[in-house]
Amino acid sequence: MGPMKSVDEHLADVLAGVHPLQPLEMQLLDAEGCVLAEEVMAPWDVPRHTVAQSDGYAVRSVDVDSAAEESPVQLPVVGDVEAGAAPTITVQPGMSARLAEGAVLPEGADTVVPTSWTDGGVSGVTVRRAPLPGSGLRRAGSDVRRGQVVLDSGTRLRPAQLGILAAIGRPRVLVRPRPRVVVISTGEGLVEPGKEPSAGEITEANTYALTAAAKQAGGLAFRVGIVPHDTRRVLDTIEDQLIRADLVVVCGGNTGERDVVPQVLRRLGAAGLAEVAMEPGHLQGYGTIGPESTPVFSLPADPVAAYVGFEVFVRPVIRRMLGAGSLHRPVLGAIAQRTIHSYPGRREFVRGVLDVADGHYVVRPADEGEPHLLGGLAQANCFIVVPEDTDQVASGDPVAVMVLERRLG
Amino acid sequence: MGPMKSVDEHLADVLAGVHPLQPLEMQLLDAEGCVLAEEVMAPWDVPRHTVAQSDGYAVRSVDVDSAAEESPVQLPVVGDVEAGAAPTITVQPGMSARLAEGAVLPEGADTVVPTSWTDGGVSGVTVRRAPLPGSGLRRAGSDVRRGQVVLDSGTRLRPAQLGILAAIGRPRVLVRPRPRVVVISTGEGLVEPGKEPSAGEITEANTYALTAAAKQAGGLAFRVGIVPHDTRRVLDTIEDQLIRADLVVVCGGNTGERDVVPQVLRRLGAAGLAEVAMEPGHLQGYGTIGPESTPVFSLPADPVAAYVGFEVFVRPVIRRMLGAGSLHRPVLGAIAQRTIHSYPGRREFVRGVLDVADGHYVVRPADEGEPHLLGGLAQANCFIVVPEDTDQVASGDPVAVMVLERRLG
Repeated sequence: MGPMKSVDEHLADVLAGVHPLQPLEMQLLDAEGCVLAEEVMAPWDVPRHTVAQSDGYAVRSVDVDSAAEESPVQLPVVGDVEAGAAPTITVQPGMSARLAEGAVLPEGADTVVPTSWTDGGVSGVTVRRAPLPGSGLRRAGSDVRRGQVVLDSGTRLRPAQLGILAAIGRPRVLVRPRPRVVVISTGEGLVEPGKEPSAGEITEANTYALTAAAKQAGGLAFRVGIVPHDTRRVLDTIEDQLIRADLVVVCGGNTGERDVVPQVLRRLGAAGLAEVAMEPGHLQGYGTIGPESTPVFSLPADPVAAYVGFEVFVRPVIRRMLGAGSLHRPVLGAIAQRTIHSYPGRREFVRGVLDVADGHYVVRPADEGEPHLLGGLAQANCFIVVPEDTDQVASGDPVAVMVLERRLG
Repeated sequence: MGPMKSVDEHLADVLAGVHPLQPLEMQLLDAEGCVLAEEVMAPWDVPRHTVAQSDGYAVRSVDVDSAAEESPVQLPVVGDVEAGAAPTITVQPGMSARLAEGAVLPEGADTVVPTSWTDGGVSGVTVRRAPLPGSGLRRAGSDVRRGQVVLDSGTRLRPAQLGILAAIGRPRVLVRPRPRVVVISTGEGLVEPGKEPSAGEITEANTYALTAAAKQAGGLAFRVGIVPHDTRRVLDTIEDQLIRADLVVVCGGNTGERDVVPQVLRRLGAAGLAEVAMEPGHLQGYGTIGPESTPVFSLPADPVAAYVGFEVFVRPVIRRMLGAGSLHRPVLGAIAQRTIHSYPGRREFVRGVLDVADGHYVVRPADEGEPHLLGGLAQANCFIVVPEDTDQVASGDPVAVMVLERRLG
């Protein structure tokens, strides 16, 4: 198993072999939340043509530059231009055309007089104010110019980015796909929820929590569920799943090198258990397996330890595969509201409740009891990170907090 | 249309008719992100039985209370108990049984001696330290007791909550479903992305941005896309969609009461246009239509105004239907880094870039130019909210900011 590693060393080893996934061309709405893998330029001006900013009359500005309330200018109206239609008319000197909001400015005209400055006439119009030459228009290219870079490679596609891609006419974009994450559990006496556990059996919960967590991290997560704690069955299942997996997460069956999962992973590739100076979950399996060197994690069976292992090691791998700019959960400073005892020599991740009091972040352990209680995990919105060289955080001391939930309180 | 309303008045009117959706029973992973609509109690103890905390030997503590390095105690081993199996043996006085981690404590025993305190014997064991009576065990119900409330109604189901539901044996839970949001666009000369717009045509972008935004808000969003700007076609489309919609969002076609969408909505139910003292997007349509009084929004055609209308009015409705505790985007105080001019008498939502500098939130407009530019929307991570009674925010002034993106920088 080798000497004990620090959390940072193990994380660096894990990330060293992980790269962003190969880009794929996707339909816009399928690409939501993905990271752009191309620089996107506008293929034409937006707006494509110069259009009326409001309902009004297209004119040559010189024809109305003397218009005033006491000396209105009258012009014949040669026709109408609707929004969405190509203008078929030309505005000759001394003439005008009636335009709907968004209608294309016809040839000859250079200005749109808003309807409210006129009598709204149909065959002829009375203009009561002189517009500035060139006013009343949204000019071609005034929003986005042809050839302009509208989004850089590496941009995450949120609603506004999808809007601009559509607006410049892009139906598909090149993005890094969501990693396909397969989640498996193995161990003795595991049963599915819905079955009352008989003596010695326990209900399998890790695949539910971690499938949801993988999805939340940006992956496409597949819950395979319980696999019997047997080398052949686990080997066959993982081999089958390698066809669709960008990442495999196995919970349980890694209590030591001779346990089922480390044996299977050694047969499938370069993978093994590491003893990591952390609590909970000091046995962490990682490697790359199969023909495509697919990353695989072997996490502890204990639900809290499995969840910590996911947050600390698996989530950054999913984020790197996505091409995300930031791999890690945000870390804040907070004031401890209780004394927290910790294992010396190990980085301890204590489930915490982060809150704001008197303008400061404050944090308390989510449960005061032992570290394996599920109940505390469901109340937590953060992990309190107690460093290796600290065995006690006193109430009132500053402490680092890894934020799991963005909303507090 | 009635007198001009404030943003707060319109929002109150909109929310007055909206209720959380009727709860549905769902499979655990389908319920991810939903809000629980029942109080969940544990149907049995977790762990179900008292089990060994580590590999070791089940004993009666009185039999080993004198054990010490210099005076070890020897006991016969009457059998093994594996994890996941019901024990078939009883530990009689003066006897022991070998237990795997997680194995059920057999009858008669009260304590587990860790293997590391013994010689690890198979037919007999030498115990070198006296355990505390009752130690080495995870007791039945020590994590969750039978009948204990593990999650309250109203809890949002994140990964840890799904984990605890699985752990207590629940395969399904009662939650508020995600609202089904149908997104439609209408207007003259709209074309799909991928088609080069000819004179007067523009590429439809609103349904892409708002379908993604509705999904991000927690809805199940369906993009219907472009409907011709015609009363009959819009009416038929909305009537068809009412079958599957909990909420309908229509962009465009609402430039006044006589435009297509207000006409259609009046025919389908109690809906109309309101003039709201805001910028951009002062024409906001809202009502309830069809046999089930389905809420419907009629948003402006302008992409920036449509997006602001979605964030300010539609998103809180989706959140209320979900049963979410907080309906609104978080609002922070920040220092303006530029002078911002605003319409007096209207609440203006200026696309902004929020950042942290010298420990303070600072904000600047995402684009310095006109309010309808899409480019600025794609750069923005917030709206700067300039109140009705303010026509200018000076550089250095405090200003309220509605946060759209949780990650800054």
